Amino acid sequence: MQTVRIALGERGYDIHIGRGLLARAGLIAEVLPQPRVAVVTNATVGPLYLDALTAALGGAGVAVVPVVLPDGEQHKNWETLNLVYDALLANRCDRGTTIVALGGGVVGDTAGFAAATYQRGVPFVQVPTTLLAQVDSSVGGKTGINHPRGKNMIGAFHQPSLVLADIDVLRTLPERELRAGLAEVIKHGVIRDAAFFGWLEANVDRLVARETDALAHAVRRSVEIKAEVVALDERETGPRALLNFGHTFGHAIETGLGYGDWLHGEAVAAGMVMAAELSARTGLIAGADVARLRALLARAGLPVEAPALPAQRMLELMQVDKKALRGRVRFVLLAAVGHAVVRDDLPEPAVRDAIAACAGRDAAAPAR
Amino acid sequence: MQTVRIALGERGYDIHIGRGLLARAGLIAEVLPQPRVAVVTNATVGPLYLDALTAALGGAGVAVVPVVLPDGEQHKNWETLNLVYDALLANRCDRGTTIVALGGGVVGDTAGFAAATYQRGVPFVQVPTTLLAQVDSSVGGKTGINHPRGKNMIGAFHQPSLVLADIDVLRTLPERELRAGLAEVIKHGVIRDAAFFGWLEANVDRLVARETDALAHAVRRSVEIKAEVVALDERETGPRALLNFGHTFGHAIETGLGYGDWLHGEAVAAGMVMAAELSARTGLIAGADVARLRALLARAGLPVEAPALPAQRMLELMQVDKKALRGRVRFVLLAAVGHAVVRDDLPEPAVRDAIAACAGRDAAAPAR
Repeated sequence: MQTVRIALGERGYDIHIGRGLLARAGLIAEVLPQPRVAVVTNATVGPLYLDALTAALGGAGVAVVPVVLPDGEQHKNWETLNLVYDALLANRCDRGTTIVALGGGVVGDTAGFAAATYQRGVPFVQVPTTLLAQVDSSVGGKTGINHPRGKNMIGAFHQPSLVLADIDVLRTLPERELRAGLAEVIKHGVIRDAAFFGWLEANVDRLVARETDALAHAVRRSVEIKAEVVALDERETGPRALLNFGHTFGHAIETGLGYGDWLHGEAVAAGMVMAAELSARTGLIAGADVARLRALLARAGLPVEAPALPAQRMLELMQVDKKALRGRVRFVLLAAVGHAVVRDDLPEPAVRDAIAACAGRDAAAPAR
Repeated sequence: MQTVRIALGERGYDIHIGRGLLARAGLIAEVLPQPRVAVVTNATVGPLYLDALTAALGGAGVAVVPVVLPDGEQHKNWETLNLVYDALLANRCDRGTTIVALGGGVVGDTAGFAAATYQRGVPFVQVPTTLLAQVDSSVGGKTGINHPRGKNMIGAFHQPSLVLADIDVLRTLPERELRAGLAEVIKHGVIRDAAFFGWLEANVDRLVARETDALAHAVRRSVEIKAEVVALDERETGPRALLNFGHTFGHAIETGLGYGDWLHGEAVAAGMVMAAELSARTGLIAGADVARLRALLARAGLPVEAPALPAQRMLELMQVDKKALRGRVRFVLLAAVGHAVVRDDLPEPAVRDAIAACAGRDAAAPAR
């Protein structure tokens, strides 16, 4: 087991990364104000791991209220959130009850927002079961749900007390979700660490083959990079924007297609290619750098072409994105492989060109 | 105009108290990150003051998105909150848009929770238009909505950037709401300031008659007392519990009767009498102290008898209250007039006796 400490003063916490952590519920028991938790999971992950986690917690003297939500990004909404509130209230959970999220990003975001808002805030522990959740949503404290008009439009910052990233659970992850998680891993390399990007170019096949040591390293380095950026900027007013590389285009793709068609990581992958194309068109990087990113994403099995959305619709969706300020879209671009920068002065024609440069001949969604 | 500074470090803010403040929107403009606000109000307050506030803000160069909600505690729920989100998104409000609450406690709590959660948090300004909101919800950062199973069960702590308490707007406040606001004013005296309690005994008739100077003093001293307590304990883990004097019983009354039957302040008034009775039965204060509190509340036109709710139902409702810890109900009691204490070791029979001692002969709601 390796541990990364997230340095946020009194809100700091540990991320443990390793094998067999689901059985080591004693790690969770240590951070609980009282020996009672609500474990929030979904109908896919629950049957695989809820019993094991409940048994381990029981062995550590911790009582469990299980809350099983429907699976899918399309359920990341108020109705699902209310299922959590209902269960907490029906079981008379008080302010000392910790909410444990057992699942991927949707479960983590929904359960985390419930923790942020139930009785104005209860403690929160994450047990992420997807690669995406382990490398992305486990750091940063972002929680929330979607609104029909925009992704993650309703939410709060709420830091967990602990994160357990068990590499073993990635064995049951569907192929497509593993690849989607790699999109964020690659993002962490390309925005801030050229050496890690090089390591990924050398090891992407081992990651796709789910070699445990390679996955553990990728998770650890991703978490470290994200933690460095978040520590600089907990409330996302400055440097943290770099983590949104590929996300301005990516969110527009997700919203434009309707949630649940493309996976988040797939949209981000195509979005990163668009952002790289825009960087090249702005003179920041060479075409060869774009090709390098495109090649690595393709080897990870990720889409590198845009879906069939008109450029005008993409532009409109980006303007309502919550990262827009005063109607002006801020783009995260590459100044080099391993170095991202924020720009809000880009002419609309350049953005249209970058979108066009990524238009695929085929409008189909990624293969499932 | 008098100003009370709420000392909360980087989240500190000013409360301005005085006449004609609604017209002084320049005070609001000073704290805005960009010259655009969403003014959230309701169908009762909006027609009275929205145009004046919008005109004043316009004069200060601030654009206004108006959001008018239905009036009443029964609308303090998700559906109403969603009206705010919808309006913000329809008008493409971004993270720099400040939400201004123009109304009483329900508007303030709902708009404040929208500000806490829209795009994970936007700035918030309060223009409280009821006495209750001026003396209570303007300090402390509590925001939230109700759940069918309990009051304020969903919420967040979110401090405003500024509060404008305009005494002039209290002229249009319905009689019953003015009296309900006095319940919290009296609470502030009885829990922490015997001299202020004495001043209230001497001046309650002036307050009921809406003498401006008396109201301004009552608002100011209430805000100061609440601010002292909140500054000790922003997240409500310790001393802040004293502010809940009368509220454990009061919330049980509100929930038991269904929201909207008794006003919050009315339930708190009856709850304070019950808590005082319990204090006397526990040997903390004399019967004469209970009589003194009861007399002052009665002169303010507030209920001093419990509604017709069985004691068993009251007890159950108190156990699910979010101030309960590990199923144990914590009571705020009086050790003297002007000095409250927290106790969580009270035997159930004593609580039943205190409830019985306040049972009225008449089960009717307060006169409207």
